[in-house]
Formats: sequence, structure tokens, C-alpha cells
Amino acid sequence: MSHRSLRELAALCGASLEGDPELRVSGPAALAEAGPDEISFFGHARYARELAATRARALVVPRTLAVPREGLSLLRCDDANRAFQLLLGVFDRLPLRPAAGVHPTAQLAPGVELGPDVSIGAGCVIGAGCVLGARAALHPNVVLSRNVRVGADTELRSGVVAYDGISIGARCLVHAGAVIGSDGFGFDPLVGPRGIEGWNKVPHAGTVVIEDEVEIGANCAIDRGRFGATRIGRGAKLDNLVHVGHNVQVGEGALLIAQVGVGGSTSIGRGAILAGQVGISTHLKIGDGARIAPASAVFEDVPAGADYMGWWARPKGEFMRTLALERKLGEMHDRLKKLERELEKRGEA
Amino acid sequence: MSHRSLRELAALCGASLEGDPELRVSGPAALAEAGPDEISFFGHARYARELAATRARALVVPRTLAVPREGLSLLRCDDANRAFQLLLGVFDRLPLRPAAGVHPTAQLAPGVELGPDVSIGAGCVIGAGCVLGARAALHPNVVLSRNVRVGADTELRSGVVAYDGISIGARCLVHAGAVIGSDGFGFDPLVGPRGIEGWNKVPHAGTVVIEDEVEIGANCAIDRGRFGATRIGRGAKLDNLVHVGHNVQVGEGALLIAQVGVGGSTSIGRGAILAGQVGISTHLKIGDGARIAPASAVFEDVPAGADYMGWWARPKGEFMRTLALERKLGEMHDRLKKLERELEKRGEA
Amino acid sequence: MSHRSLRELAALCGASLEGDPELRVSGPAALAEAGPDEISFFGHARYARELAATRARALVVPRTLAVPREGLSLLRCDDANRAFQLLLGVFDRLPLRPAAGVHPTAQLAPGVELGPDVSIGAGCVIGAGCVLGARAALHPNVVLSRNVRVGADTELRSGVVAYDGISIGARCLVHAGAVIGSDGFGFDPLVGPRGIEGWNKVPHAGTVVIEDEVEIGANCAIDRGRFGATRIGRGAKLDNLVHVGHNVQVGEGALLIAQVGVGGSTSIGRGAILAGQVGISTHLKIGDGARIAPASAVFEDVPAGADYMGWWARPKGEFMRTLALERKLGEMHDRLKKLERELEKRGEA
Repeated sequence: MSHRSLRELAALCGASLEGDPELRVSGPAALAEAGPDEISFFGHARYARELAATRARALVVPRTLAVPREGLSLLRCDDANRAFQLLLGVFDRLPLRPAAGVHPTAQLAPGVELGPDVSIGAGCVIGAGCVLGARAALHPNVVLSRNVRVGADTELRSGVVAYDGISIGARCLVHAGAVIGSDGFGFDPLVGPRGIEGWNKVPHAGTVVIEDEVEIGANCAIDRGRFGATRIGRGAKLDNLVHVGHNVQVGEGALLIAQVGVGGSTSIGRGAILAGQVGISTHLKIGDGARIAPASAVFEDVPAGADYMGWWARPKGEFMRTLALERKLGEMHDRLKKLERELEKRGEA
Repeated sequence: MSHRSLRELAALCGASLEGDPELRVSGPAALAEAGPDEISFFGHARYARELAATRARALVVPRTLAVPREGLSLLRCDDANRAFQLLLGVFDRLPLRPAAGVHPTAQLAPGVELGPDVSIGAGCVIGAGCVLGARAALHPNVVLSRNVRVGADTELRSGVVAYDGISIGARCLVHAGAVIGSDGFGFDPLVGPRGIEGWNKVPHAGTVVIEDEVEIGANCAIDRGRFGATRIGRGAKLDNLVHVGHNVQVGEGALLIAQVGVGGSTSIGRGAILAGQVGISTHLKIGDGARIAPASAVFEDVPAGADYMGWWARPKGEFMRTLALERKLGEMHDRLKKLERELEKRGEA
Repeated sequence: MSHRSLRELAALCGASLEGDPELRVSGPAALAEAGPDEISFFGHARYARELAATRARALVVPRTLAVPREGLSLLRCDDANRAFQLLLGVFDRLPLRPAAGVHPTAQLAPGVELGPDVSIGAGCVIGAGCVLGARAALHPNVVLSRNVRVGADTELRSGVVAYDGISIGARCLVHAGAVIGSDGFGFDPLVGPRGIEGWNKVPHAGTVVIEDEVEIGANCAIDRGRFGATRIGRGAKLDNLVHVGHNVQVGEGALLIAQVGVGGSTSIGRGAILAGQVGISTHLKIGDGARIAPASAVFEDVPAGADYMGWWARPKGEFMRTLALERKLGEMHDRLKKLERELEKRGEA
């Protein structure tokens, strides 16, 4: 790792530089861990304590954020996250995409269409009719069945599996082990003289459409629709181990945090945020911008913009009041007994 | 995609045809999406609204279902789901099994036994002692360790892993990324002067037996037994991301919906239905035909045929009454205070 | 499978033998399933009923455990689990590691460092800068990106994926499908005139450090830190389908049972036990030796040694009392109404 001057780095990030353009740094590091020859990142006033203690002498900061410490060189950027990401790249601290080109061990069916500069890693298997956009990158051991479309600049990490006919947009990132397009869970009862005697698989002829700029976490599972599409809207982000049932519609920019499960045919509004482990039943509507607290179990529609929480999720304020009262139940029970005794005593008097 | 006449399709499905045998259709589609040259599916009276609006002119319907709309050609079938699945196949709308034969990049240990017409995709690895029944189909990158048995007509999607000695029945479908036969989670405490000082791994020498006609969802994990077998009964269906602990016994025809977790040594009765995200503790008995509502946490045995719900699952009626009262706790608290004040006032009087 | 004498087996395990050294057994089996020519395992007094009924004539038992049945030959061992594991190995009942050596279909980047006697299975892909310790074993289709370190005697089952720069210690076992080092879930809102208009990905330049003797279950997902490391402490054990967020610190010897989810930047104390499906919010501290009951949702710090339970986890005793009262809410409501009526009646009198 060679050193770089702040002048060079500012040019790279489009930053305006306050401080010493000749200061040379060896790489990026967290405030708490940086040495004096490293550059760090101060993105929000809540990290003021770490800022006060850091040994770094240079920082990437948002254009207008006040920096409550003297003597540091600052790279001020419009988009500090993106600037820091660029620095990580310069210093080779980010996971690399596989090299452009098709690895000789990859298996491509005849007629697969590859855009310019695609990367296809070792052990990938790509079925007939697949189309990959420019610079799409498949890490090793990815499997695309037939007729899968992958947009430009999309990256699929190792072991991702996309079933037949799935469509993934541009600039998406799908983490390792995610499965896209498995059959929806649909079985009709076979009723006999003894009641239900078995299950009749409901065909799932639909697909999954992942729009542009979606991120999907490790080991997620997204089912195909019964007829139409399960859809993950533009810019939505899914964390690890999320389940999305058949025909679910996830709105643009929604966040589904780790281990969320969404039942079949439910729709999640634009920009809704489902915290970790939230479960949503089937056939519900979660409104735009709704927020559901972690591990909540949702059995009814949630209005747009609402804040819900609880096992049997309800408006968060109501939940918190009920929780407080629930924790006073012992006291309430005692007071009730006291009233009963008092009344009895007076009755006898 | 070529067109097919209803006469042809009726013959294929064993359907009796009401309507125009020469009508030609280009493929299957949902009621809401079908064009006038497509065939759709009407499986239940609850879809009457979509039926009224559909542009399709031909339908697959169950043998005896009333169709509340005139002028449509009907293919009446004993098993309409199966008929529709056949149509999807005819029109090439279903995921294909890999071609019969062993892909040249697959690695088979010497002595693996293959039934007639098996399909083994690219990158599969099959260990010594494995036996695959007729027409078993392994999609790319499946790994079978040693001595795994796979029954006839069973399909394992990409990336499935089966550990040593696992047995999978006939006509099963295992979705991508599922892992069958990982070690049960068993550790004995190593107790030292400071309390627990570490964990001693408990050997898991048992196996997993998947009986016939089981479906297992994407990225499930099913642990092997400690000595005997973890067993998934005939016709049981598991959705995505389900965890099944060591020595669990899942009854025939049980449904385990997405993200269910079943603790070690628990038994799930025949035809029981565990809705999404249900968790069942270890060493419990869930009776035949029991139904557990989504996200319920089960800490005690559930009787056969019971309907349970809640965090600390209990009979659903009891849960719903308690929930209603819980939401009136604020009002109850106010009434209690009012009584106290009233009594105090009278006492003073 | 050939038979072995108890004399041989005792020597192998370092056991002292009580009984017939010439008795020959064909293999190990559970108490309930063993035949008269098999050896079984009696590890705890709670299995006395199975012991009374077993047909086995020989047992592995801990050095000082009383065996309430006459006439059995006993192999008394300091570490009975380990002894039984050895027996399973002798009788070829354990999953085998892949043979030592590099399978010809594995793809190793130039400069990968391999310790003595490593095993690398078919279809593995190992990136530049990776270092594997002595006897490390990679089952088929494992992918290590660049600069991954794997310690001596560590075993990675099929399909495991480790991202760039991850470090895995010695004597670890990682089950199939686990993903280590995926990006943390971090997105800053892009705020426009209409509110949140999208999400800006926060770079995750940190890593994951798995210390020695850790076990990780099938299809787990462990995210890399934002800057520093997500850390799984020495001897910690993770069951299947566990999610560990970015920068989480899991203490030594902690147990995370199936489907647990731990939010970003939370720390889990030494020897803490999180039962199945527990969810822990972000930025919390779970103290050393704390125990959290299954499916509990944790929204606040948990003190060392505490026993927590509930949706909104709280001390277990408090939870159980509240649960009991909650189930009496109907009765409390009736008593409240009765008091109101009584008071009204007296008021009128």
C-alpha cells in the first residue's frame, strides 16, 4: 500500500481541502483505530467523542458539518459516504469484483448474451436465454437458470441462485447465498373421508422482478409469483435472511432489515421500514413510509406514515402505554383486592 | 410459443371440454392479466370478481365448480391445479429440470449408483456410496456427501447440500440452498472453578430421513439426529428459511411456513400447520392437525386439533379475549382509580 | 463394518474398562435403538429409563456417573462425549473430511498459502492472498475471496462463502451455506423536497474475525464491520440461520441458538445464552452469562447473569408473574365491574 497525498485524494473525491495538501496518508481507518498516518471519517456530530480522541490527522467530512476540533486537515465532500467509498477503493480495502471476462470453468449455454466487460467467475452456470448487461459481475459459483436478465453494473456474490425467468435490474448488489425465484408456498388441501389427506401443489408460473439499485442480503429467499411477479421496487434494500413470499410488492426505497418475513400477496409501501425479525401476514397493505419496530408481528393493515410496534402490532404510542400498564398489573391486582376487602368490610359494618 | 387448440389441451389434461374445441390459445395467464388469446384458471368462487373482469376466453376449472359467467370455454378437470401445471409445461412456462445425463463437470465418486434417466447438472459433487433413483434431477452445484440416497423423481435445486448418510424419498422437491444433515446443536458445559469455562461438542451420529413427496424451501436447515433420525414425514411441506433441530419428528402432511423454527426432539403432528415465524421450544409435542398462528412462540405442548396463538402461545380464543382486554387496560386503570377515589370520598363522608 | 473388542476401544479412548474386555461390538447406537452387539452411551442420570430398557451390553459413561443397572460392560472416560466421537470415527459413522490434497477442479489464485495436509474439495475457489493453516479442510464448492485466513484444523462445509479479508481461527467448524463478511446493512437517507428520496450506501470497510474453536451453523450470515471487526469470540457456538450484524461483538463461549438475530454494534457477553429466535436490537449490551428465553425481543441492555424473557424482554420472574396476571385479565375485569355495580347500588341506597 503506497501513501497518497491529500491533494490527490481531494481531487479524486471532488472534495474541497482545508489543511495540508502535502500530508500523505497510508489508508482509511475508523476514528477510534486510526493512526497518525491514516485518514478517517467524521459523518455526524454524534461521533464527537471519537473525534476528540482520534489520532488521525486527516478526515473526510460532509460539506457543511461543523468539526469541533482544531488542527485537522479536512476533505469536505457533498457525499461523504461516497467519497469514503472511493478512498477505500483507492487503498484496495473493498471486496473486488472478479476480473472482467468469463472464467474458463464457467458453463454458459449457447446463445447467452453478454454485455461489454461482464465478469463471470469460476464455477458459474448460466442457462439458455440469459442476458447480462454491461459490466455485470458474477462471483464464483453463481447459478442462473434459463432466461434470467441481469442489468448493467449489477453484482451477484458467490452462490447466488436465480431461477428461470427472473429479472434483476441495473446497479443491484445481491449478497452470497441469496435465492431468487423459488416457488411460492401454495398447496390446496386434498380432502378425503378422514379430512385433509394431503396437499396438492399450486403451480407458480409467475416471476420475480428486482428493479434497479436494489440490495439483497446474504441467504435471502424471494419467491416467484403465482402468475404475476413478486416485485422489489427501485432502491429497496433487504438485509440478510429475509423471506419474501409470492406476489409480494415491495415499494421503492423500502428497507427490510434482517430476518424479516413477508407473507404472500402483501404489499409494502414506498420507503416503509420493517425492522429486524418483523413478520407480516399474507394479503396485507403496509402504507408508504410506515415504520414497524423490531420483531413486531403484523396481522392488520398499517396506515401510511404510521409507527407500529408489538406482538400484534399496533400504533407505537398505544403499545408503549399498554406495556407500561401491563408491567403494573400486579399493582392493579393488589389495588383491586384492597377495594374488594374494603367494600366487604363496610358492607359488614 | 406456438398456439394450441382447446381440443388438444383437454386431451392432455384429461379434461371434459365445454365450449369451442377449435379455439387456439397462446399460453396460460392469470385472470387479471390474460389477453383474449390466453387460457386462465378459475379455482375457487372467491375469485369471482377477477372472473367477471377477465379478457380470457378459456379457463381451466375444477370438475364441479360453478362458473358465474357466460360465454367462456371451460376445461373441466378432476385436479385443476395439476391440469394447469401440465399446461404451464406445454407452453414452456415452468422451470426446466436439467437435461438427463451427467454433466461433464460433475464429480462423481467411484461406485455411485445412478437410476435410469437421472440428470446431474454442472458442478455437482457426489460422494462415495450415493444412490440416485430413476429420473432424480440435480441442478447445478448440488453437493451430496457420502452415502446419500435420493429417491425417484426427486429434484434438488442448485446449491443444495446433503451431508453423509442422509436419505431423501421419492417425488420430493428441495429448493436452492437448503442444507440437510448439519450437526445438531449440542454442547455440554465444561465446568471449572469459574463456572462454565467452555463447551464440549456432543457428537451427532444420527441422520435425516426425508420421506416421499416432501417439499423443502430455499435456504432451509435441517439438522441430523444425535443418534436416531430427524424425520420429515410423507407429504410434509416446508417453506423457505425453516430450521428443524436434531431428532425432530415432523408428521405426515404437516406445513411449516417460512422462517419457522422447531427445537430439538420436538414432534409435530400429522397435518399440523405452523404459520410463518412460529417458534417451538425443544422436547414438545404438537398434536395432529394443530394450527399455530404466525410468529407465535410455543413453550408448552399443543393438543391435537387445537388452534393456538400468541407470544406464549395459548388457545386462540383465549388469546384474542386477552388481547382485547389488554387494549382496554388504560380504561380499566382509570375505572380502578375512580373507584378508589369514590370509596375514599364516601369513607370521609 | 468389522467388530471391535472392548479392550481395543478402551485403549483408543483412554477409558478404564469395567466388564468383559473380549466382548466385540459392531458399532455405536442410541440406548433405545442399540442391539445386543452394539455399544451405547449413557451420559446423564436423566436417561435412566432408556438405560433400563436398552439391549446394548456395553456403554460409554463418564468417569464418575452411577449406572443404575447391573451386568453391563462399561468404558469409563474423562470426556465421554469425546470418547463417543472417537468411537463414531472408528466405526466410520461420522461425516468425513475431504481427502487431503487439492482437488483438480479447485481454483486457487497464484500465491495462496497452504499449510501441510490441507484438504480442498472439488469446485472450491480461493482468491489471492488467502492463507490456510495445517489440516484445514474445505468441502466442495467453498468460496474464499481475497486475503481470507483459515486456521489450522478448521473445517468449512460445502458452499461456505467468506468475503475478502475475513479471518477464521483454528479448530473451527462452519456448516454448509454460511456466509461470512457480507456488507453491514447501512444506508443514509437521501433527503429531498418530498422527504426521504433514496438511500446512500454506507461503505463497510471492516472485517469479521472468528476466533478459535467457534462453530457456525448452516446458512448463517455474519456481516463485516463498518470499519473495525465483527468478532465471534473464542469457543462461541452459533446454530443455524443466525444473523450477526456489523460490528457485533460476541463474547467467548456464548451460545446463539437457531434463528437468533443480533443488530449492529451490539455486544453479547461471555457465556451468554440466546435461545432460538431471540432478537436483539442494535447498540445494546448483553452481560456476561445472561440467558434470554426463546423468541424474546430485546430492546434494552441485559445485566450480567440475568435471566430475561418476553416480547419486550424483562427479568424472567417478572415476565412470568405478568403473564399469569394477563391470563386473569378477564376475571379482573369482571371483579371491577362487580365493584362498580356494588358501589352504584350502595350509592343509590
